[in-house]
Amino acid sequence: MFVRAKALSPALCGAALRLPAAASGCQRAAAGVRLYVSQAAEAVLDKSAAGSDASARVAAEKKLLSVESKSFAVNMFKGQLNTSQVFPFPSVLNEEQSEFIRELVGPVSKFFTEVNDPVKNDALEKVEDGTMEGLKELGAFGLQVPTDLGGLGLTNTQYARLVEIVGVHDLGVGITLGAHQSIGFKGILLFGNQAQKEKYLPKLASGETIAAFCLTEPASGSDAASIKTTAVLSPCGKYYTLNGGKIWISNGGLAEIFTVFAKTPVKDEKTGAVKDKITAFVVEKSFGGVTSGPPEKKMGIKASNTAEVHFDNVRVPAECVLGEVGGGFKVAMNILNNGRFGMAAALAGTMKGIIAKAVDHAVNRTQFGNKIHNYGLIQEKMARMAMLHYVTESMAYMVSGNMDSGASEFQIEAAISKIFASEAAWSVTDECIQIMGGMGFMKDAGVERVMRDLRIFRIFEGTNDILRLFVALNGFQNAGNQLKSLQRALKNPLGNAGLLAGEISKRARRRAGLGSGLTLQGTVHPELAHSGDLTVKAIEEFGVTVEEMLLKHNKKIIDEQFVLKRVADSAIDLYAMVVVLSRASRSLSQGLPSAQHEKVLCETWCIEAHARVLADMKALRSSSSKQLFNNLRAISSALVDNNGVVTMHPLGF
Amino acid sequence: MFVRAKALSPALCGAALRLPAAASGCQRAAAGVRLYVSQAAEAVLDKSAAGSDASARVAAEKKLLSVESKSFAVNMFKGQLNTSQVFPFPSVLNEEQSEFIRELVGPVSKFFTEVNDPVKNDALEKVEDGTMEGLKELGAFGLQVPTDLGGLGLTNTQYARLVEIVGVHDLGVGITLGAHQSIGFKGILLFGNQAQKEKYLPKLASGETIAAFCLTEPASGSDAASIKTTAVLSPCGKYYTLNGGKIWISNGGLAEIFTVFAKTPVKDEKTGAVKDKITAFVVEKSFGGVTSGPPEKKMGIKASNTAEVHFDNVRVPAECVLGEVGGGFKVAMNILNNGRFGMAAALAGTMKGIIAKAVDHAVNRTQFGNKIHNYGLIQEKMARMAMLHYVTESMAYMVSGNMDSGASEFQIEAAISKIFASEAAWSVTDECIQIMGGMGFMKDAGVERVMRDLRIFRIFEGTNDILRLFVALNGFQNAGNQLKSLQRALKNPLGNAGLLAGEISKRARRRAGLGSGLTLQGTVHPELAHSGDLTVKAIEEFGVTVEEMLLKHNKKIIDEQFVLKRVADSAIDLYAMVVVLSRASRSLSQGLPSAQHEKVLCETWCIEAHARVLADMKALRSSSSKQLFNNLRAISSALVDNNGVVTMHPLGF
Repeated sequence: MFVRAKALSPALCGAALRLPAAASGCQRAAAGVRLYVSQAAEAVLDKSAAGSDASARVAAEKKLLSVESKSFAVNMFKGQLNTSQVFPFPSVLNEEQSEFIRELVGPVSKFFTEVNDPVKNDALEKVEDGTMEGLKELGAFGLQVPTDLGGLGLTNTQYARLVEIVGVHDLGVGITLGAHQSIGFKGILLFGNQAQKEKYLPKLASGETIAAFCLTEPASGSDAASIKTTAVLSPCGKYYTLNGGKIWISNGGLAEIFTVFAKTPVKDEKTGAVKDKITAFVVEKSFGGVTSGPPEKKMGIKASNTAEVHFDNVRVPAECVLGEVGGGFKVAMNILNNGRFGMAAALAGTMKGIIAKAVDHAVNRTQFGNKIHNYGLIQEKMARMAMLHYVTESMAYMVSGNMDSGASEFQIEAAISKIFASEAAWSVTDECIQIMGGMGFMKDAGVERVMRDLRIFRIFEGTNDILRLFVALNGFQNAGNQLKSLQRALKNPLGNAGLLAGEISKRARRRAGLGSGLTLQGTVHPELAHSGDLTVKAIEEFGVTVEEMLLKHNKKIIDEQFVLKRVADSAIDLYAMVVVLSRASRSLSQGLPSAQHEKVLCETWCIEAHARVLADMKALRSSSSKQLFNNLRAISSALVDNNGVVTMHPLGF
Repeated sequence: MFVRAKALSPALCGAALRLPAAASGCQRAAAGVRLYVSQAAEAVLDKSAAGSDASARVAAEKKLLSVESKSFAVNMFKGQLNTSQVFPFPSVLNEEQSEFIRELVGPVSKFFTEVNDPVKNDALEKVEDGTMEGLKELGAFGLQVPTDLGGLGLTNTQYARLVEIVGVHDLGVGITLGAHQSIGFKGILLFGNQAQKEKYLPKLASGETIAAFCLTEPASGSDAASIKTTAVLSPCGKYYTLNGGKIWISNGGLAEIFTVFAKTPVKDEKTGAVKDKITAFVVEKSFGGVTSGPPEKKMGIKASNTAEVHFDNVRVPAECVLGEVGGGFKVAMNILNNGRFGMAAALAGTMKGIIAKAVDHAVNRTQFGNKIHNYGLIQEKMARMAMLHYVTESMAYMVSGNMDSGASEFQIEAAISKIFASEAAWSVTDECIQIMGGMGFMKDAGVERVMRDLRIFRIFEGTNDILRLFVALNGFQNAGNQLKSLQRALKNPLGNAGLLAGEISKRARRRAGLGSGLTLQGTVHPELAHSGDLTVKAIEEFGVTVEEMLLKHNKKIIDEQFVLKRVADSAIDLYAMVVVLSRASRSLSQGLPSAQHEKVLCETWCIEAHARVLADMKALRSSSSKQLFNNLRAISSALVDNNGVVTMHPLGF
């Protein structure tokens, strides 16, 4: 929902090796409409280039090439290991922070057990008033607002711990809270100036006012940059006139404060050309001209209000611009990027609750003379549920920990955590229903509601499909930059002896079948050495394949979505491997009671993920994948020509 | 839901090779509670042994060994090809039958487009009265009742064609109709005597009375044989007194006629011992003492009434016994087995409708400057939807065609069609929502309702998990019988020269790496030769693995559910390969307009299914699978000990 087409730079190194790279303005228009993610990646990565003039861009690009990324995901696309962000598993809370949040866990859990009624919220299609008031009293509407502005001032990791509890109990409430603070006013937290913060955050933190995030429009979902809402500056320069309609806005019918994205004409200081660019605004309902539609009727998260929001000649003071004029796309991307770990944390909680229900049923239900947990089919389901939960929870706290440690590059990891969590929670809940049989399909069991709620998590805040492209293209872009510097080095071998020596040695070892020389030994706990080796092997295969795909498809890799999907799937598997390796290593080192269990979870995950990655990478590099992709394209094309199923009925009519 | 423990016979051939085989009474009690499916298989297969005395059983077993099965699925478990049921693709309707059903397609479709309102039915949680009346007028309540008893007298294939239309439009109505005739009174059609048929079928066919199938009880779901409802014959022998409670009965609150399964004391004529056996009864609500609970609140198929049904000292005339006293388990299994193709047909219709919606969206939705069907990620989804539909539709009409041709062995195929259809429809609908994005989550789009409806299809009428065991164990049993006869032959090589020569030659070829000598060349259309070869190779690997698993696990294979699941998954893939090979071959031979498209569907399916089967079979035969299974068991066991997630929270609290 949040990414936008952008061209790749012209190849720098001649015809033989053209690689994706950062943007060059001249080609933007040409390939513009086809690439989804580079602009989003740039908005997130390229903070120094916010001014977006050409020289700043080039400087940022150079910086990107010279500075070694600490992101594990970025490096694995290059076939490299950089463990600085992932080992040891982050422990970022100091004693005071830990104590503070630990003391909140009990009361918040109690509130959700004793006050909130998810069944009633679902039936009423709103969060009960009493629950809303209670949440406000708990401080749940301002978890990350600084304490001096009336919030709890939580770190990301602390925030994760609390939304995890919400996820256990009621995803409808979770979305109400998340739409408010994870995206609704997150822009003010991240980009607001002091005046904006002081004006809005206290009332938002107390829940006196509710916030909403207004990006999506009828014709603009994944393609967020194509929004049609406009904001035109008055001749006096004091206000903008805002016009447009937004759809599917969570809290849209409840909010008084809106973060709104609109196109504004922006003049290039140098060329004088005027271009429409996205700008973010804080809009108050009290400005007038802001109306909302009735609550949408949805499959799930019914307790969460979803509505259209219309802006009809809304007069928005110029001081309501959030961030820079024309810098709204970056604002939107950063908000979403900063919120993804929260979804993973909430869904880790959801899974924990659902697993408890499944186990409870399996332990108490007798069929064929035995409790059903004795049957292999049930055991496999429960084991897979536990692995998916372990990975999700580990990802959530890895990403939040990295963010709290000041990491600037976590966008691939955050996207992976959102994809993984939303699919894992879906699978876990689906299998819980299957274990419960007919009972799982009944409303009374309370699992079908969770399943209905979960369906939207694979769609909103960046569909998992778009996020897969984001992961793969972000990775390819970094890997392409690396190959490019390698090629530059080849032109000046003496000045780049170190870089070349490393690369030449890597390739020589690879040709000799010796592997890349990469290892996680000494990094992972010795008991997990085998899993570490499997992970390294998978990363080597992945890196080789990424390079081969770059060499093969050149900058056209951006159109090779069949390839991108598989690369993203493997990237997700690899990141999952490394986070559980890290967490299980820490647990083993600390001698936790669950350490041996975590070891088995980690080992099992690594065995299966390793096999998946190797199979996927082998398939990508084989000639048969070309036929497969051609077939899939042909089938789809025939469906399009036929407006649906093409085959004649077996009976002929 | 319908299968029951039974022991395997003692091994006939010494310690080296003990194999599962048909039941021997003496061991039944010992291993009784662990095996789910043999009894069900027996009930279906072993029609001649209905009297169930030992000699008849032995005779039936001998017959089973001597008569070559025509079932493709049975044979593939032996690593053999028997194409008689699958090639050419069945065309069983004569001109008159074809014409009759063709003329019904229009009006029925029109009724569902113009009269039935699925949205309203879902909201009302019942099928609107006007729709019910209209369906009755259409004859929809007596599709397979003979015409002289007031029904339409449809063949299974004709029935499939009509329920396919229902599946396109409203699964809630589909279950209302299916609970009535596919299971509710199917017992009367299959096992009723002339008097029972004449008494009940006319009013059931007209819809004047509604039927329901009463098997499931609170403590008896998958383990159907464990029901506690009792029927005790009066001293005068004229009536039974029925007591018990049934749950989750579709049409339970609407029906006047119930097919009820209850335990009755049955005396063994020879030994004089009295044992509780299941007997099927036709029970009228008018008998008194029959009450039903309120409609259950469910995730989906809300239009379909689901309720508890209680029988409190119901006086059931002895002439209401359906089939033989004590033969009720067989009645239940046959009813379910005979109805499965209908689910596949209905869901083929559902998928067709959903695919049309997805394509419509993909063709009309623009993002990033292009209609989204131009993007590979969307193309892959649509192509997979088309393949899943093609397989499901082909399975539905393959099975119905086989049944109409008088095949007696189709239970593996019918179970596969139910598993495949319910999972394929789920996947297709899920992907349609994903393609539609936020729109798919909204009630207005009408897809979320279908998704809610579909969730129960993987559970009811035999959960897909239990059916996988059914498929695998049925197959193993047949393969075991074959190995056993081989061993017998080895004791008398001269009298079995033919059999041995074939086997020795097959094994010698296999050892020499020449394959089994099996081929589909000359059977499949020449343009599909490669897909045929892939299928043969996959079947060879499958047969070898099945044999190896039998030799390795011996009769303990019944407890190896990790193995059974994987064998079942491959069996499903293999059967899917052969049905699409058959259908696409016919289309190519007939030069249908969609033949080339079908060729691509078939080829693509075969490429991927071949790879899956080979990978699964290789994994099963490798030593690593043992570690994997042990790990899964250990993880599950730890969850059970811990009442849920075992791992300590990453923050420690």
